[in-house]
Formats: sequence, structure tokens, C-alpha cells
Amino acid sequence: MTTPWSLHAERALPADTTTRAIATEIYRSIADLPITSMHGHVDAGVFDRDEPFGDPAEVLVTPDHYLLRMLVSQGANLAELGVRTLDGSPYETDPRAIFRKFAAGWHLFRGTPTRYWMEHVLVEVFGVEKPLSADTADEVYDQIAALLASDAFRPLALLDRFNIQLIATTDGAADPLAHHASLRARGWGDRIVPTFRPDPFLALDGAHWRDHIDALSVASGIDVASYPAYLSALEQRRQAFVAMGGVATDHGTTILNTTPLADAEAARIFDAALAGTVSAAEAQAFGGHMLTEMARMSTEDGLVMQLHPGSLRNHDPAVQALHGPDVGYDIPFATEFTRALQPLLMRFGHHPRLRLILFTLDEDTYSRELAPLAGVYPAVRLGAPWWFLDAPDAMRRGREAVTETAGFYNTTGFVDDTRAFFSIPARHDLSRRVDSGYLARLVAEHRLELDEAIATAYDLTVTLPQSAYTRT
Amino acid sequence: MTTPWSLHAERALPADTTTRAIATEIYRSIADLPITSMHGHVDAGVFDRDEPFGDPAEVLVTPDHYLLRMLVSQGANLAELGVRTLDGSPYETDPRAIFRKFAAGWHLFRGTPTRYWMEHVLVEVFGVEKPLSADTADEVYDQIAALLASDAFRPLALLDRFNIQLIATTDGAADPLAHHASLRARGWGDRIVPTFRPDPFLALDGAHWRDHIDALSVASGIDVASYPAYLSALEQRRQAFVAMGGVATDHGTTILNTTPLADAEAARIFDAALAGTVSAAEAQAFGGHMLTEMARMSTEDGLVMQLHPGSLRNHDPAVQALHGPDVGYDIPFATEFTRALQPLLMRFGHHPRLRLILFTLDEDTYSRELAPLAGVYPAVRLGAPWWFLDAPDAMRRGREAVTETAGFYNTTGFVDDTRAFFSIPARHDLSRRVDSGYLARLVAEHRLELDEAIATAYDLTVTLPQSAYTRT
Amino acid sequence: MTTPWSLHAERALPADTTTRAIATEIYRSIADLPITSMHGHVDAGVFDRDEPFGDPAEVLVTPDHYLLRMLVSQGANLAELGVRTLDGSPYETDPRAIFRKFAAGWHLFRGTPTRYWMEHVLVEVFGVEKPLSADTADEVYDQIAALLASDAFRPLALLDRFNIQLIATTDGAADPLAHHASLRARGWGDRIVPTFRPDPFLALDGAHWRDHIDALSVASGIDVASYPAYLSALEQRRQAFVAMGGVATDHGTTILNTTPLADAEAARIFDAALAGTVSAAEAQAFGGHMLTEMARMSTEDGLVMQLHPGSLRNHDPAVQALHGPDVGYDIPFATEFTRALQPLLMRFGHHPRLRLILFTLDEDTYSRELAPLAGVYPAVRLGAPWWFLDAPDAMRRGREAVTETAGFYNTTGFVDDTRAFFSIPARHDLSRRVDSGYLARLVAEHRLELDEAIATAYDLTVTLPQSAYTRT
Repeated sequence: MTTPWSLHAERALPADTTTRAIATEIYRSIADLPITSMHGHVDAGVFDRDEPFGDPAEVLVTPDHYLLRMLVSQGANLAELGVRTLDGSPYETDPRAIFRKFAAGWHLFRGTPTRYWMEHVLVEVFGVEKPLSADTADEVYDQIAALLASDAFRPLALLDRFNIQLIATTDGAADPLAHHASLRARGWGDRIVPTFRPDPFLALDGAHWRDHIDALSVASGIDVASYPAYLSALEQRRQAFVAMGGVATDHGTTILNTTPLADAEAARIFDAALAGTVSAAEAQAFGGHMLTEMARMSTEDGLVMQLHPGSLRNHDPAVQALHGPDVGYDIPFATEFTRALQPLLMRFGHHPRLRLILFTLDEDTYSRELAPLAGVYPAVRLGAPWWFLDAPDAMRRGREAVTETAGFYNTTGFVDDTRAFFSIPARHDLSRRVDSGYLARLVAEHRLELDEAIATAYDLTVTLPQSAYTRT
Repeated sequence: MTTPWSLHAERALPADTTTRAIATEIYRSIADLPITSMHGHVDAGVFDRDEPFGDPAEVLVTPDHYLLRMLVSQGANLAELGVRTLDGSPYETDPRAIFRKFAAGWHLFRGTPTRYWMEHVLVEVFGVEKPLSADTADEVYDQIAALLASDAFRPLALLDRFNIQLIATTDGAADPLAHHASLRARGWGDRIVPTFRPDPFLALDGAHWRDHIDALSVASGIDVASYPAYLSALEQRRQAFVAMGGVATDHGTTILNTTPLADAEAARIFDAALAGTVSAAEAQAFGGHMLTEMARMSTEDGLVMQLHPGSLRNHDPAVQALHGPDVGYDIPFATEFTRALQPLLMRFGHHPRLRLILFTLDEDTYSRELAPLAGVYPAVRLGAPWWFLDAPDAMRRGREAVTETAGFYNTTGFVDDTRAFFSIPARHDLSRRVDSGYLARLVAEHRLELDEAIATAYDLTVTLPQSAYTRT
Repeated sequence: MTTPWSLHAERALPADTTTRAIATEIYRSIADLPITSMHGHVDAGVFDRDEPFGDPAEVLVTPDHYLLRMLVSQGANLAELGVRTLDGSPYETDPRAIFRKFAAGWHLFRGTPTRYWMEHVLVEVFGVEKPLSADTADEVYDQIAALLASDAFRPLALLDRFNIQLIATTDGAADPLAHHASLRARGWGDRIVPTFRPDPFLALDGAHWRDHIDALSVASGIDVASYPAYLSALEQRRQAFVAMGGVATDHGTTILNTTPLADAEAARIFDAALAGTVSAAEAQAFGGHMLTEMARMSTEDGLVMQLHPGSLRNHDPAVQALHGPDVGYDIPFATEFTRALQPLLMRFGHHPRLRLILFTLDEDTYSRELAPLAGVYPAVRLGAPWWFLDAPDAMRRGREAVTETAGFYNTTGFVDDTRAFFSIPARHDLSRRVDSGYLARLVAEHRLELDEAIATAYDLTVTLPQSAYTRT
């Protein structure tokens, strides 16, 4: 390759020429529409401080667990990739050395979305002209580093450059939301909003649960010494998120049994947790109960409820002990929705103020459980293929498995879920291409008219994400 | 769109031009072959009375739970769609208003088989020339209503118009089959046959089990006061179905464990049920036992045994209480066949008179369990992708997952399963197109010769359904 | 068809012309590369004796359970297909009659890999020019029989003809490896190697476990009268395999829980087994424990560990009683890896000397569990789609489900697993075509450059199998 590195205009569209031509027409109609990014993992402080992002390794390598895990699977270790250690043992701190290691493993990413996204970031965002390799690593590094230092690449400026009209952060339930308040005061409140994430507050047998409850007391101003106080404190915090523009809650859980408990039983278990005597079974039952309570609160305050079960976090405890969570060792498992969600849906599945967005890492549930549930309960919407499934073939399979039962209008459109801020445009672009390809096949097979496909593509890109993530 | 609404001759065939051309040739060879419809849900009385079908809403909207559920998922309620209430609360009775609501939601069906089938019905059956929309709803309604009132659209006439050479109804085990007797007396006995469905008679802890047993006593003339009498009564009823031309039984169950009980234990549990003291676990064990008993009876009377587990019926009990069953609230769950069917297949899997047709709503079982079972046990045939899987992409996935292990000749060919009588030709046509597309790909990839593909398409359309549904 | 039977050069490549052209280019670059066949089921004695293979039925029909099961599913019985009976009842012994039965059922294999492989064998290996049918059966039989009798078709000569550079046999843990020693002495030791398969030695409640332990004592020269002696004897046998060039162990199990036991508990259970008092639960726990022990031994002797759970063997016990195992009655079931392998991977998942190759018959685990595990643990590699999944569409689905998470470089490339020696070239050829087709689609969709695709195809064919099956 001697011409400058460039991305093909029709990449990730179907290979067949008939379908490609239709897909291209559909894609062009949505390619430049603004981005709604409602499941982000960038810290609000990044936007509030609006300082330059840091070095290329810190921006592109270290926080991206997709990328880390692939290099680890082929023999690298996390410390030499610059992942901080918690026990004081050494780890690589030279960003250039880290970036070189990544570049040397570039071929490992063939066929993966990391490859696709990173190409987009390097070429489209940073204007890199030489394909990444061990040989070009330093040159590419320097080019990126120079841009990252420029004012044009500060966080708030990038919201414009990336055409992001609305971005959500994910925040602990006891977060004081000071950065959001500061952003709001400066006029960014309609563009950067918080998301209420209460997971560790609901897991009574979590290692640090008492610390979280103490923090909840402080944040809410309510002494969380009883189950009623606990509910009140959570409700208060949800209101605080609403006041800062929050539109949604976010629940990642391995518990998925939404059977409610009687108040007295819930209170008894909660007290046992405060006393340090709660059993694992009690904590499980309480966690399931609280999912339905969270749904109940959503019917009262209108926060959209996002639920994504099915991942066993920190599969190797030694890695967690050395490096902490979120470094690539979360592994999915089989998940059940039909019976698990029945108690919650019996209560609130038809409630006009509940919107419950479901995500899965278990593809088999698409046609078997999720599409049938979303295709009848008005409260339910299906989120986008997520995490390991946020990839071109997996996204296509998702549409193929879901649409025939749930249609398009019970889905949310694309929801990115990334710690890698610079990849947001790449991810949305890829999703638009995949949706265009799927719609184009329906047109090519005369199952849909072209004008309908274009209207549907617009809805998937704009209308559905916006309506899914509007407080009810 | 200003030209009359028309359906593309090559719709639902593969987009790729090479494969499309082959698929078209295969499809043309089977497009006009007669229909065998062996899993119907139209009441035999409809044919016996042979009166006009009713208004367009009653024919096309209200009985179609695929259609209802989509509109409900987007905020409609069943009462305003004309679904009768059981508590006396009001529901829409103006068919034109109901039809308008459906028409206004037409875009929701994009990408679904409902859209595909309904287009076929409107254009091919009723000759509608303007695409359905809120604007054209009344005009379309009038056109359909006029045709429905005509003699040419009476039920028996439609059997000819639709090219249906054989249709089965589904009938309770205690049904006196009076309509079938009447039809038979008038010479329709070779074309309209009953199917023996005993589910509520086998569920000892069902709410109305005693009523069913009473009805069974009446219908069979045998006082069902003991387990032996119960077996005799069921055998008697099966004979009555045989006498009316019946070829098959039909079993929808959440129980799927076919371990037989000792006679004494079965009798003990049956007596407990009569005494009102049966436990849920006993009822489960008995239900599984009776599946193997039903297989045993099939080896004696030759009735083909259809089994379709995997759906949790009436997921929202409040909806069932208000509107009854079959309005869209059945949700699939993960199903296991390998171990569950082992006891039954150990006994009868090689019996020359058992033909066991298996259906699933859990796609993962296709390649993992169903194709391996059908690919070795001579008694087993795989039914078509069913219910939520009766859709173009799901049917294609079904063939792809099954054929490499079970071939074509261990499948039944297409089996429709619809309450929407008018959609039968559309469903068979779609299935033929999908099979043609699948076969065409094998030809295009030089994995099959064209003449073999055409012969196989014929077998899938005629030979296999006919042989699968012939009493052994 | 009046021209001689021939196989299309572009068979099993994608139908779409754009992708086909790219796939053809990729395929040509790897079509003639030598074969590494590391999971074989041909007896080492076949090579050691190097006598002619036998008659066409014995070579092509009787040992091939894929083929037998299809004919059985359509009404044949195993005895008339020449499968030996264990109770003295008659079975067909005329090879020509057996071959005729197979030929008469040729159409049943449409769409199956058996059809694809057999065509390859008949046309490419035996030069058959008339398509197989009942009419041509005898003529084809004679042609094959004549070639099988020739020196050019003796086993060792065929290794050259088939371009097999390395083939592994599968051998019981107590096998004295005399054939391997003999082959080694004659200079074949680098080309034909044993594989250590200890399954029946690890199943304490297996019917013949004591016999196996006795054999283990004899083979190892260690009196296996205690748990420590048992471990020593297994370690000794593994060393014997290493000495004969062995590179891998092979574990087929329904137990998949790798929780280790304390030594004292393992010893207690082992003693109970020797005393004949072990319970099923104890045997299960011990079996799981031994998987982790086998991994531990691999970290010490460097043998690659292959694990393929998920098949319920001998589903119909009556067939097993009459004909023995491996005649087609093994049926897969749902399998769990995430939690089951966690104990093993916590201990050895990062060990530089463990290489654990995982196979599955449950496709749902590809994207949900296997790709995430292989995509982070350096010890784990994914084997090829296996058994019922060793077929063109299933292999394509495998790549699609795995690559986006695990990439190409955490897979082993193709691993055949056949008792049908003559089909080895066909299977490798088909796999190369499917991989070429998958890579071509990535190129056509501009997700990969052509030069990268060609390099990856080479790695999948040569580098990855060789490195996966090199002792660490």
C-alpha cells in the first residue's frame, strides 16, 4: 500500500452489488446526522475540566478493555501495557512503549471491531496516513500526541467535532454530581447528562456495601438506618439526577429474578445486612426485589430503566486483585428473561411511565425471549447489541433475530457503551452502516420499499434513540 | 408510489443476482402446487356452516395475535382493537374503527412477516390497489367487505381458490366432531380432517381439569373414574378422530420429561387428581408419563404425534383474566430435548408406527439437539420453524441449522400454524420462496445440482408434508 | 448429466460474484498446502502394518457414523449396513450389498457435508466418473475396490498422496504404543504421533473402570493402589506418549466442572472407587477435579490439552448393547463453560506451558462464552467447529460468531476429527474454502485488505495448527 491510508466509502456495507448500491443510498441519508450517546463511560470531570486528554496510550490503549484483552490473550501482560497495579508492583509508564506494543500486535485485531473502530479513529479523527505497524508506531504516536495537545481536541470541542448532540455519563448513586452542576451552570446541561447507576447499593452482600450506604446517607442527607430510609434515600438521589438532566438509570446485574418481597421481609433482610448477618440467598432475593422497586420508582419519576444482565465480572480474581475491574476479564453466561422478568412486567409492563430497555450478551435470547417480550409489552424496548456483540456481524445477526418478531420500533436504535471516547463516532458510523445494509437487503428482497427503508433508517438514528431516552 | 400496489415476482428470494436467478427457476417449479395445511386453527364449524366470514376486522385483525401484539407493544390496548373482554368492560365493536387503527400502525410491521403476509392477502386475495395507510383504510375496508360478502369468498369456495387440497383443524379430545361428521357426509371428509389435541386432559392440576374429564366421559361413553378408564377413554377418542379422517395428535406443553411411570404409580397419581389432592410435582411427572403413553397409543393407532414445547402461555395473567388466552402474551423459554425425549425414544424411537414431529421456539436447539435426534431416530421428523420463527430470515436460519445434520428428508416441509385463514396461501408461498432461496444457494455454491434442487423443492412442498402427515 | 462427474473448482465458495472472485484468489493461495491432521481416529496399527485398507464398504461406509445415522434415520438398520452385532445376531457381510444400500440412499445426503466429502473422495481420490446412484453402485464399487488393492493406496503411501505431513492417532492412556514404537523405528516418528486419551480412567463409576486401572498398572509398571500412585501412573503414561512424539491429550466428557478437591478428599474418593463404594456425585466431583489435574500435568510436561464436552453418548442403550458405541447415537446437549472452567483457568489460565483447546457442539457458546474466554486467557485456543458442526454453513457461522471477539489468532485453524481416513483431504479442502469465503467477505466489505486476508489464510492453514499442536 503506497497511497495514503484511507477508509473505503462503502466499507461495512454488503458485498453483493445489488444490495450495496441500495445500502449506500440509505447510508448516505443518515451518515451525517448528529449522535445521541446515552450509555457513555467518560467521567463528567473530563468535560467539566475540559483539559487536554493526555497521551496517545492513555487515550487509545489503556482504558480500552477490548484492546487490552486481545493483547493479553496473545501473551502480553497488563502491566507492560500500562495498566496500573494495585500492589505497588511495576508497570509500564512510558506511553510510547505502550503504544508500540499495541502497534506490534495490530494484526491480531484482524476481523474484530477494535480494528474497524481504531482505523476510523486513526484515519478520520487523527488524519494518520500510514497504516499502523511496528514500523510506523512512533510516527503515528507523534502525530496523535500533537493533536491531543491542541485546543481543537479538548473534550468540549470534540463534542462538536464528533457531532455529539447529547451524551450521558454513568454515575454512582451517591455521586454528588458536582461536575454536572458546574457544566449545567455553564450552559452544557442540555448536552451532558448523568445516569443513575445504583448496582453496589443494591447488592447487600457486596464487599463494600456498608461504605456505599454511608455514602448514600451523606449524599441524600437521609440517615439510611432502615429499609424505608433506604428507599427514601434512593428516591432522593434519583430526584437529584433528574434535577441535573438525568434521563435514565443503569443496572448491570447477575441477579435476574424480579419477584417482589413483602415490605416486612425486605425490611428484615435489609436490617440483617446492616447487622452484617445477611445470607447470600437473602441478598439475592433482595436484589431481585429491588429491580422491581427500581421499576416502581421509574413509574413515579419517569427515569428510563436500562437493564443489562449476563456478565460474570472479574473472572480471574487474581487479575482483579492486581489491576482492579474493567480490564477485560468479564465473561458472559446464559441468561433467562422470560420467567425472570415476569413479576416485574406483571406489575409495570403496561405502565405508561415505565420504559425498560433490555440488553443481552446471550444471542440466543434475541429471538427466543427478548423480541417476544419487546413485541408485546409496551414498557419494553430492546437496546442495541452490546459489548462483545457490538460488532458488524453480531449487530446484523441482532437485527435478523429481533426484527421479524419485534419490528424496528420496539428497539432503541444504536446505544454505544464505551470507555474509549474517541471511538464514539466510529461506533455510530459502523452501526449506521450495518443498519443500512440490513434495510437494503429487505429492499433488495422486495420486503420493504426504498422510501420506507430510508424513513426507518432515520428513525433508527434519530427518532428511536431520542424517544427511548426521554424521561417519561 | 403511483402505480397500483403490486408484489414483486421475485420477492423474498435472495438479493444476489446469481442466486436469485437460480432461486426463481426453482420457485417457479413449485409456486402453483397445491397446499397441504396440517396444523390449522380454523374451527371446523366455519367450513360446515360455510357462511360468509364476517367483516374485515373480524377476519384480518382480531384473531391474529401476531398483529395484535405489535400494536399493543406500541401503546394500543386490546379492547380498542376489538378484543372481547370477559368482565363486561367496554371494547371496540365498530369494525371500521378497528381496521383504521390497524392501518394507522402499518409502518410498525416493517420487516415482519405480518407485513409480508398481509400485503399478500390484500393484493393477491383481495386485489387492493392502494398501499394500506391511515388515508386508504376506509377504501380498503370497503373493498374487502364487499368481497367477503360474496359467495366466491365463502369458506369452502376459498379452499379451491387457495388451492388447499387438505386442511386439518385442531380439536379438543372430547370434541364430538359433529361438524366433521357433517362435512364428511357431504363428501368433504378427504379434504378437511380433525386433529386430536388432549393438552388440558393431561394436565392434572389444570384449573378446569375435572370439567375436561367429565366431558371426556361423555364423549367417550366411558366413565373416567380410574386410570385404566382414562386411558381407555383417550384411546376411544383417538379412534373417533381416526374415524373422521384424523391423521395426527397435537401436544403443546411446558412439561418435557417423558419418563414413564409404573402403572400403579400413574394410577395413584390419577386417583389423587380425582380426589383433588394431586401435587404440582405429581402432575408434572404424570404429564411427562402421558407423553410416552401418547406415543405408545400412536404405535397402536398410527396417529402422527406432533410435539411443540417451549412457550410460557399467558405471561401476563391480568391480560388473560381480561381477554382470555391467545392474544399475544405467550413467551418462549429455553427448551431441552436431548435428555427429555430419551425415555420416549428408547421405547419407541425405532418403532415403525411412530412418527414424532418436533417443533421448537428455541433456535439454539436446531443444530444442537433437534437435527441430531431427527438425523438418527427413524421415528423423528422436524416440523417447520414455527410461530415467532415462521418468518423469512428465521426459516432460512432453520434450514441452515438443520440440513447439514438431518438433511431435507427428516423434515416435514412447511407446516403453517395460523388462526388467520386468509394468510394460508401467503405463508405457504413465502415458505416456498425461502426454501427455493436456500436450495439456490446450494446450487450456486456447487453443493447441489439444479435438477436435484428442483426435485428436493418438490419433495419439500408435496412429498414430505404428505408423507409426514399420513397415518402410519 | 452426461459429461464425466467433476467437481466445480469454485465449489463451497460464496455465490456472490464479487466475493467469489476474492475467495478464489485466497483459496488458490492455500489449496495445495500440506495437511496437519491432529485429531485423527485411525488406528496406529493401520499405518504400522501398512496393508491394503479392505473393501469399499469397510473403508467408506461402515466406520462412518455420519453416514450410518442418516440411513438409519430413514429406515435402514445398522445390521443390514454391515455393522457388527455383539449378540451373535446376523448382520450383512457382503460389502457389495452394503455399498448398494448406501448408493440407493444417496439423495438423502443432499445438503449435508457427507455428500460433499464423499463426492470429493469418489471423484478426486478414486477418479469415479459416473455420479453415484443405485444404478452405478456396482461399477463404482469395482473401481474403488481395484484401487484399494493397489500399492499406491496403502496407508503410508496415502499420507503422501493426501499431502498429510503430520497425523495424530488417538490412543487409550494404557496403550503400550507398540505400533508407534515400530513406526518410529522405521523413521515415521515425526509424521505419525499418538494422542493421550484418558477418559475411562477418570470416570470412577464407569462400568469397566477397574479393568482400566488394572491396565494402567500394567502399562505404567506402577501398582495403582492409591490416589498418589494413580497420579504417578498417569504422569508416567503421559511421559511415554511424549517419548513417542505425542503432543496432546484429548478429553471428551459430560462432566464440566473443574473445581479441584483437596488431596485428602480426592484420595478418599479414589479409595472408595477401588472399594466399589463410590457414589455418582463423588465420581462427578472427582472427574471435574481430574480435569484441573490434567491441566496441571500439562503445565509440567507440555502436552496440549484438548477438551470437547457436550455430547450424550449412546442415547439409545439398546443400540449400544447390540452394536457398541460410535454408530451415530451420540446427541449433544447444552453446555456451560464460563463458570465450569473458572477454577481451572484461575489456576492455569495464564500459565505459559498450558495450551487448552476448547471444542463445542453448542453453537450458542461461541459468542457468549468461548470467544470471550479465548479472547483473554493466553492458555485458551478455540478448536474448529466439530462433529455435527464440521460442515460448510456451520463452519462459516463459527467464524462469524468467534472472530469479532477472539480474532483469528486465538483459534487453532482446522482440526479434522474423523474415522473416515479417506475423507481427510476433502475435509481440509472444504475448511480452506469456507475460511477463504469468510475472509473474502471481510475484504469485499473493506474490513480487511486482500494481502492481510491471504496472510491470515496461510496462518489458519499452517501456522496456527502447527503452533497450537506443538508441545509447550
